[in-house]
Amino acid sequence: MPSAISQTFIQMPSGIDDDNLYCDSWRLSVETNNAGYWKTAIPRCSSYVQDYINGTKYLSDSMVVAMDSIDFAKTINITSDGNDAWVFDIDETLISNKAHFQRHGYESKRANDFSFKEWVESAQAPALPASLELYNYLKIRGFTIFLLTGRPESQRNATVSNLLSAGYSGWCRLILRGKGEDDPAIVFKAGKRAELGKEGYKIHGNSGDQWSDLLGYPAAERSFKVPNPMYFVP
Amino acid sequence: MPSAISQTFIQMPSGIDDDNLYCDSWRLSVETNNAGYWKTAIPRCSSYVQDYINGTKYLSDSMVVAMDSIDFAKTINITSDGNDAWVFDIDETLISNKAHFQRHGYESKRANDFSFKEWVESAQAPALPASLELYNYLKIRGFTIFLLTGRPESQRNATVSNLLSAGYSGWCRLILRGKGEDDPAIVFKAGKRAELGKEGYKIHGNSGDQWSDLLGYPAAERSFKVPNPMYFVP
Repeated sequence: MPSAISQTFIQMPSGIDDDNLYCDSWRLSVETNNAGYWKTAIPRCSSYVQDYINGTKYLSDSMVVAMDSIDFAKTINITSDGNDAWVFDIDETLISNKAHFQRHGYESKRANDFSFKEWVESAQAPALPASLELYNYLKIRGFTIFLLTGRPESQRNATVSNLLSAGYSGWCRLILRGKGEDDPAIVFKAGKRAELGKEGYKIHGNSGDQWSDLLGYPAAERSFKVPNPMYFVP
Repeated sequence: MPSAISQTFIQMPSGIDDDNLYCDSWRLSVETNNAGYWKTAIPRCSSYVQDYINGTKYLSDSMVVAMDSIDFAKTINITSDGNDAWVFDIDETLISNKAHFQRHGYESKRANDFSFKEWVESAQAPALPASLELYNYLKIRGFTIFLLTGRPESQRNATVSNLLSAGYSGWCRLILRGKGEDDPAIVFKAGKRAELGKEGYKIHGNSGDQWSDLLGYPAAERSFKVPNPMYFVP
């Protein structure tokens, strides 16, 4: 996020001291990956992020991502071999943890602290509505769906239970971090996509709220960035 | 951009028929490359794009990109061999053609029609203020600057003249499309980055308003997407 030094160097136009305008630009920089490494929203934008997450804009942004994804999915000629695949991340992509974050702060996920573990075990996270509609569309179209998450194997049962109660079903495989798979998400996830490729799957689409879900080699044919101004996972 | 079919499938939340909300989400989808291939703004968002381009938000978004770029540039230890490089696109990255587009429409660039050629020859495009500040910062820091554009060699003189009058100077090389270099921008530009790499340059940063400026192999260490909701170049 912009530091004091860069803010001194770049002359901001008048009006940019308006928090809403600035935080809109900050959020764009996060969504385009221009911001690079960040942790959670800067203090100046923390109430902006709250408003965004609870307002219509988050819904609208998510809906347009789902529509873009469907428009691409429609162009794929699904073959009968079952190899036409789509990869989804889970947290903040299929399901929303905002109820937890609003009580315990976004840092609790990064730190994987007790409160976040407890929340995951409670399996209460609801679906992100646009993602559920996209997921069901892809299932009907015949895509083979892989779920690829940074959650550990120890949370498999809770994750399955949460996904089912949120309305998701019919995925081909849920891939979690096994013991010793401690690479950063961007490395771990690219490695898993490579394994799927070796098995013969063609990954057409990949949906994730983190750039570390999407970047790295091999990438999907098309990647879809789901909005998340709450936290960053490297 | 979302088609009628995907809009039927995805249930939009109430309020999303608000053009401003919808077009904000559409612009985000363009800036994150979720939108994939598009030409110019959909009719519903054409006046929104006009307002954006002429308003404070475009300035603010551009400033934050420049600040992100500076924050990254500061982390680079510049060596004395002159090989620490930064690549800039030109149109809508260093200079703005909006005065032309407002008279002749965004399609005139894509079509490279007579009015756009005439505009380029007139060399009147002003600097985008945040980019000029970033450029000068990088120059002072000692980066070797390459300008990489889809403009043809025949426009070299006009381009140099325009850049100088807009306030840019001191680049190492201006790379335009030579005869027969007719690949799509994403291929042409990645090829030129590969050549720079073979010459020993290390491309730390790459600034462009199009994803075709930034994607493709080899990529820069960090890529910076400058906003442009006006047109798309594949």
